[in-house]
Amino acid sequence: MAWTTNVLVGQSGGPTAVINSSLAGVYESAKSLGAPHVYGMQYGIEGLLQGKFVDLDQYFSDKMQIELLKRTPSSFLGSCRFKLPEASVDDRPYRKLFQLFEEHAIGAVFYIGGNDSMDTIAKLSAYGAAINSPIRFIGVPKTIDNDLALTDHTPGYGSAAKYVATILKEVICDDSVYNIRSVTVAEIMGRHTGWLAGAASLAKGADSDGPDIILLPERRFDEAAFLARVSELTATRHNVTIAVSEGVKNKDGVFLCDLVSTAGQLDAFGHKAILSGTSRYLADLIRVRLGCKTRAIEFSTLQRCASHLASRTDVTEAYQVGGAAVEAAAEGKTGLMCAIRRLSDQPYQVTTELVDVQQVANLEKRVPDEWITPDGMQVTEEFERYARPLIQAELTPIYINGVPRHIHLGNV
Amino acid sequence: MAWTTNVLVGQSGGPTAVINSSLAGVYESAKSLGAPHVYGMQYGIEGLLQGKFVDLDQYFSDKMQIELLKRTPSSFLGSCRFKLPEASVDDRPYRKLFQLFEEHAIGAVFYIGGNDSMDTIAKLSAYGAAINSPIRFIGVPKTIDNDLALTDHTPGYGSAAKYVATILKEVICDDSVYNIRSVTVAEIMGRHTGWLAGAASLAKGADSDGPDIILLPERRFDEAAFLARVSELTATRHNVTIAVSEGVKNKDGVFLCDLVSTAGQLDAFGHKAILSGTSRYLADLIRVRLGCKTRAIEFSTLQRCASHLASRTDVTEAYQVGGAAVEAAAEGKTGLMCAIRRLSDQPYQVTTELVDVQQVANLEKRVPDEWITPDGMQVTEEFERYARPLIQAELTPIYINGVPRHIHLGNV
Repeated sequence: MAWTTNVLVGQSGGPTAVINSSLAGVYESAKSLGAPHVYGMQYGIEGLLQGKFVDLDQYFSDKMQIELLKRTPSSFLGSCRFKLPEASVDDRPYRKLFQLFEEHAIGAVFYIGGNDSMDTIAKLSAYGAAINSPIRFIGVPKTIDNDLALTDHTPGYGSAAKYVATILKEVICDDSVYNIRSVTVAEIMGRHTGWLAGAASLAKGADSDGPDIILLPERRFDEAAFLARVSELTATRHNVTIAVSEGVKNKDGVFLCDLVSTAGQLDAFGHKAILSGTSRYLADLIRVRLGCKTRAIEFSTLQRCASHLASRTDVTEAYQVGGAAVEAAAEGKTGLMCAIRRLSDQPYQVTTELVDVQQVANLEKRVPDEWITPDGMQVTEEFERYARPLIQAELTPIYINGVPRHIHLGNV
Repeated sequence: MAWTTNVLVGQSGGPTAVINSSLAGVYESAKSLGAPHVYGMQYGIEGLLQGKFVDLDQYFSDKMQIELLKRTPSSFLGSCRFKLPEASVDDRPYRKLFQLFEEHAIGAVFYIGGNDSMDTIAKLSAYGAAINSPIRFIGVPKTIDNDLALTDHTPGYGSAAKYVATILKEVICDDSVYNIRSVTVAEIMGRHTGWLAGAASLAKGADSDGPDIILLPERRFDEAAFLARVSELTATRHNVTIAVSEGVKNKDGVFLCDLVSTAGQLDAFGHKAILSGTSRYLADLIRVRLGCKTRAIEFSTLQRCASHLASRTDVTEAYQVGGAAVEAAAEGKTGLMCAIRRLSDQPYQVTTELVDVQQVANLEKRVPDEWITPDGMQVTEEFERYARPLIQAELTPIYINGVPRHIHLGNV
């Protein structure tokens, strides 16, 4: 089936290394199905409400631009953190949006994002159905956190996982350089779920033991058991490496990082200090209680923007869900998210499928309890069997003058 | 000329992404010149004094292992921070070392490192000359800081510079994702010199403005001028990116990072907090004085261990200085360092040459004043002309199971 109407696509929430591959998938599928124009909303729904439309044809008429797009981190279109109100409470943004859709002859809207973005798609499709609009709304999953339900995994996770595993492996090399005992605590993103922290286990191989301890938000932090384990490890080896999710809480349900920043500290200007610091907290704890040399490392925002180290599997799947979302809309479907279903682990095979976007919006997928070791300080082989295929293969950056070339709105 | 005696090699000081390429260069040149055994000192001179010898033939008999060695970050042999005493004050370590050299029939010693390592080579060669030892001592330069004199640049710098430029470019993409004003401050290694901070300028290209401000330790921090410039920038653009060397000092000569940690802060356990924080200091300063959203990012230890993003130019040159050092020793030379001399910028061409190791040990090379803009907040085109060739080309990691494979002492 072919498009006679235009298509609109937006990106929302935190970026990933491959969110632009999904944009490429939407764009190329829509064009190949005959869409006269593929428009982008700049800064997501929030920008769209301010009339920020861009015509993507002016950026992607050449296949070389698509290749650069796949290699450009962050959200090409810009993003937002914005939740639509319930239409029953305030239907003004809906009326404004549907008017914009009509003015631009939009037949389908695609939104690339996480839970909140799926909530947006659910609300828009419900509103559309209520007013008998023919416009189709399809969600395209994206998040490094991998916490979306009804999909085997989310595009963005594989690349973040590959980044975490690779640089942790390099940091472990660096840890062992001096002939002294030391503990390194690496802080990994993931406020609510431990999917990304668990990926630290993928550093393990014939040439590396990987992290000695992994702490996930799925388990409350047990200080005594933790210190006993670290003490046991430091007695038998020179260098101990700990991977910790930023979202780990103590037994009272308080984030460890808040135990640092609520200690009444002030910055150099007498204001309350802003210290992100789950790794800092644990490094201090080990140093003070066990008298051991420690260092804390935050893997930082690079986890969501290190396109130079993207997983080719992830890049490909991100593109595929974007393309399959367009096909679904072309077939008249709406109010759905294009998910990934795993057919087998070995050989790794997946396919796309459509799931209810409302359900996705309301759920959060956590690491299964049986994939965490009984002591709560490691992930199991099942976790590795799940995650290892997602970090396979690479997409070589196009290096110009020694650094990867990107593409941006405004500098075609 | 050919070797009939054995060869000994060590690594010292902080690691780099290519220090092992120099080890590969020493090993392969020594073997090709006929050295019966190439020994490594584990944990540098400090480990050697404890008798820590390894026979490298058991690790590198296969060329595949050499390829892995070139791709393995950190120091394969381990390292130390250790200065030999003056022989006139205490000659015991010298007697011990020369006895070990004799026991292992060592004809030449190579030490891969920075200023302190060159000091070690200078002292050993002077002691050797005084006792009429035939052993030759040659230094092989290495440091991400690029602060060694008498060499155009140091192996290790190009890869660290490529890492800094690449990830800063990715972070700049990430900065612009939301439609809000924000300032990002990225902290880059370099306690005394701004070579690595200056490399942030290499993020600039047709697709990126690069950092808006670069602060180097070569200039004292002028708070008023800095805030005026940030204010000017935030008035004209959404996202401002600042690269700052960890070693920047205020007008009184105090490290900015010490202004944070001497503010009397305590960690969560009531101990004095250890906060590395030049970027944190500046981010707080901007937030408090200009009321702007800020974030601080430390590029951390990855700057010295991100072999997955090494510069091929750097890998090659690190190998070459290692090999040329062996050739120099084979020709009977001693008390020298194998430096890099640049023949031309465009096309980039270099050769190796031998320089006095004692002079290298005593000097520190800073960024030339004329390569820093008059306001002290950027580097000039001359800096880029110097540094850009050093980050060219890549050495693809060998990925196994999705992560780069390395080689370690003990897991051949």
